[in-house]
Amino acid sequence: MITMVPSRNAVLVNGVILNGPITDSKAGEKFVEDACKIIMEEVIQKAADVTEKVCEWHPPEKLKKLLDLEMRDTGEPHQRLLQLCQDIIRYSVKTNHPRFFNQLYAGIDYYSLVARFITEALNPSVYTYEVSPVFLLVEEAVLKRMIEFIGWKEGDGIFNPGGSVSNMYAMNLARYKYCPDIKEKGLSGLPRLVLFTSEECHYSMNKAASFLGIGTQNVYFITTDERGKMIPEELEKQVQRARKEGAAPFLVCATAGTTVLGAFDPLDKIADICEKHGLWLHVDASWGGSALMSRKHRKLLHGIHRADSVAWNPHKMLMAGIQCCALLVKDNSDLLKKCYSAKASYLFQQDKFYDVSYDTGDKSIQCSRRPDAFKFWMTWKALGTTGLEERVNRALALARYLVDEIKKREGFQLLLEPEYTNICFWYIPSSLRKMEEGPEFWEKLHQVAPVIKERMMKKGSMMLGYQPHRGKVNFFRQVVISPQVSREDMDFLLDEIDLLGRDL
Amino acid sequence: MITMVPSRNAVLVNGVILNGPITDSKAGEKFVEDACKIIMEEVIQKAADVTEKVCEWHPPEKLKKLLDLEMRDTGEPHQRLLQLCQDIIRYSVKTNHPRFFNQLYAGIDYYSLVARFITEALNPSVYTYEVSPVFLLVEEAVLKRMIEFIGWKEGDGIFNPGGSVSNMYAMNLARYKYCPDIKEKGLSGLPRLVLFTSEECHYSMNKAASFLGIGTQNVYFITTDERGKMIPEELEKQVQRARKEGAAPFLVCATAGTTVLGAFDPLDKIADICEKHGLWLHVDASWGGSALMSRKHRKLLHGIHRADSVAWNPHKMLMAGIQCCALLVKDNSDLLKKCYSAKASYLFQQDKFYDVSYDTGDKSIQCSRRPDAFKFWMTWKALGTTGLEERVNRALALARYLVDEIKKREGFQLLLEPEYTNICFWYIPSSLRKMEEGPEFWEKLHQVAPVIKERMMKKGSMMLGYQPHRGKVNFFRQVVISPQVSREDMDFLLDEIDLLGRDL
Repeated sequence: MITMVPSRNAVLVNGVILNGPITDSKAGEKFVEDACKIIMEEVIQKAADVTEKVCEWHPPEKLKKLLDLEMRDTGEPHQRLLQLCQDIIRYSVKTNHPRFFNQLYAGIDYYSLVARFITEALNPSVYTYEVSPVFLLVEEAVLKRMIEFIGWKEGDGIFNPGGSVSNMYAMNLARYKYCPDIKEKGLSGLPRLVLFTSEECHYSMNKAASFLGIGTQNVYFITTDERGKMIPEELEKQVQRARKEGAAPFLVCATAGTTVLGAFDPLDKIADICEKHGLWLHVDASWGGSALMSRKHRKLLHGIHRADSVAWNPHKMLMAGIQCCALLVKDNSDLLKKCYSAKASYLFQQDKFYDVSYDTGDKSIQCSRRPDAFKFWMTWKALGTTGLEERVNRALALARYLVDEIKKREGFQLLLEPEYTNICFWYIPSSLRKMEEGPEFWEKLHQVAPVIKERMMKKGSMMLGYQPHRGKVNFFRQVVISPQVSREDMDFLLDEIDLLGRDL
Repeated sequence: MITMVPSRNAVLVNGVILNGPITDSKAGEKFVEDACKIIMEEVIQKAADVTEKVCEWHPPEKLKKLLDLEMRDTGEPHQRLLQLCQDIIRYSVKTNHPRFFNQLYAGIDYYSLVARFITEALNPSVYTYEVSPVFLLVEEAVLKRMIEFIGWKEGDGIFNPGGSVSNMYAMNLARYKYCPDIKEKGLSGLPRLVLFTSEECHYSMNKAASFLGIGTQNVYFITTDERGKMIPEELEKQVQRARKEGAAPFLVCATAGTTVLGAFDPLDKIADICEKHGLWLHVDASWGGSALMSRKHRKLLHGIHRADSVAWNPHKMLMAGIQCCALLVKDNSDLLKKCYSAKASYLFQQDKFYDVSYDTGDKSIQCSRRPDAFKFWMTWKALGTTGLEERVNRALALARYLVDEIKKREGFQLLLEPEYTNICFWYIPSSLRKMEEGPEFWEKLHQVAPVIKERMMKKGSMMLGYQPHRGKVNFFRQVVISPQVSREDMDFLLDEIDLLGRDL
């Protein structure tokens, strides 16, 4: 099967010449260089430019025709590939744009961006010290600081691909702590495990309960007050109800910064109930956790140091880039490892020549895992703790400004006084302003936000989310995150909604 | 609270000036530019250079001192940050290096790298068409082609953060298909669910079973033959045993390309048994799936078209960058969505102005999700199907060359004739070559690979994994992936092991 071709000294196996690489590295490097220029000009330099469109919107069938998506037998040439890069950028939503307000992330952070470029170039996977020495140490350092900001003396943690996944980890960890046998024996034949969370919680609670075999019916949703905060007395009642039913309560998931309203559950009172009943307290601070960086605003999370675990996503208000999500655990008896380990002998050899306690990969449900902590570390290094604090303070101040503007302007109506940077409001077109607030009014108002959304998408002037929520008809949710955003952008937002919707 | 300062026309809220952005975008852009130069010179241009070290190894405590990891109150200046970038790169393992053979990924793919840079710059999350129009269409196109390569007429799928996560998805999906009530009711009170996989399977099977509440004891491991392939007759016996026990068999997880030995389970025979017993057939082809791209080698996966679901990671042999992992599902009745949906009304509004069937995020356990399909798409565009095929053929030809060299050389001993590009072998130092293969021999041989590993790490000449496995003492596992690798690198590998270990 192996043929030596003496003239060229080449080795042929199964018709494949094995001498030298098959990749033209010079051509590859040239492509990276040319593409980087496009990225710099078309994405990075335009990120702060409000005169650019947030998106050039086309419906799916049309966009498929505009893009050349087909993968062919033969490769495309250099120039054609660069054109594809430009098309991809052109038709993508600019989430870096100062007027992208559609999600809980926005803006451009130049430092985390560099960390992400380094990550992609080095292409590491974070599980063993031998393969990822730097990134494991960085993760350790970042987790340590985050743990300090929660107010724990010690703890453990891991970065995960999303806050939803962090919430799942916490749920499984609480279950393991409650009954370690479940790891091996499973849930079959056990009493019904029940967990508690507010009716304003993130939808990942339901996803986690079904994925983990607990079942969505065993998530008991606790009533919230008019601001969206869990009512502790209702929690107490539901725990007692579960006990009476013969079920096994094991976990309370409080929320610090709910997705729609930005509400913070009263953690201290909830911690009292958890202590009394011996329940694990997990705080989903995926969104609100960043307020811990601000001495002024960290009181929103008063009592968080009493939690057993916390999910916190620096990719949201701290702009570390998607995804950067930590699960932090107060326990320091290696619970995370006991719960998750599978002890793969090909990866976690115990006879290595270094301290294998740095091989943290067996704490994870993943095998290959990205060095997400590194992105946050780089931003922290560049801005310092005070720079991160300034971001949080500015976002909350901008939110306050917007609230006051909404109160001043005719045709705008706040849903509620916000605690955080989610500002929920209705725009009431002039045709509805004199109508009585009866069923017809609400029905008509429900249709306003989707039409304005369609118009802003097609114009490309900004992006802003809307939703119906718990009996309330469609309203806008404005979220302030990025330090690129200024007072002028808040004014623009309201002017633009009025401009797009005044004829409705 | 709001103070107008007329002289500067500034708006102050809570002491924060809200006019203009707080980010210096010019300084940020300069930092990105300067850092990109470093990345180009220190990572990308050195990737193909065998004279560079694979790693500059230091033990954890020393590396902590070499790196300035501390996050301070104030930020670091431009030049200091660039120095940090250089340090991060310097002390990281160069997984792009032609002599990095340590994991199931390696090498540099310039095209997927550009896609990853674009991704990081645009910072998208893939859940709704309004936010990720391009990346959702790209994912759809890539999934469609991967489904064709499996041999299904139609299907569905999703990209996940790792093959382990894809395996979990499949396990949960099979369970949902078996009993949809579990989503709401959970496993409590149900009979014991049992799944079957080979004893050579990936460790994510155990992780998934414990995470999903099934329990690791309910993973029935099927005996393999001497090449590491599941024995179908043993599977039949175990299914019958589970039924006799009153348990509920629901799933068989076959493996196409095992992690250590690179073995392929006999899919066609396993599919017969699944059909007979009405069991879901999942194939973990995370590693071996890429052989489907080769007309010559796809026979390794003969019968895969009969699977109900397949996990396949293009980030391994097809070099799409970590992570790029598809779960593919044969069902086309929207099972993935039914199983996973939580219908969050703030994200998946049904009154949008476009076809919301493109909002695929509710098929996922994640909320924010990265556009991993895009990396593979870009490489496919650049190389064409034939270029991808060539990569697979070359990797297998190089593996064949290495096997033949091992057979020729004194002191090297193959564990088994490989099917794929995992070449498992012992290096026997001259002091052991004349010893009888008794307990003392094996005990001494067990200690050889760790010492050679330590020496190669400290020298930085290459990286190669070793492990004990199923009663076999520590052996090397060489994996061939990258097209940058040549016959010369295979020769070097054997020479270097001999050089590092001959005195043992």
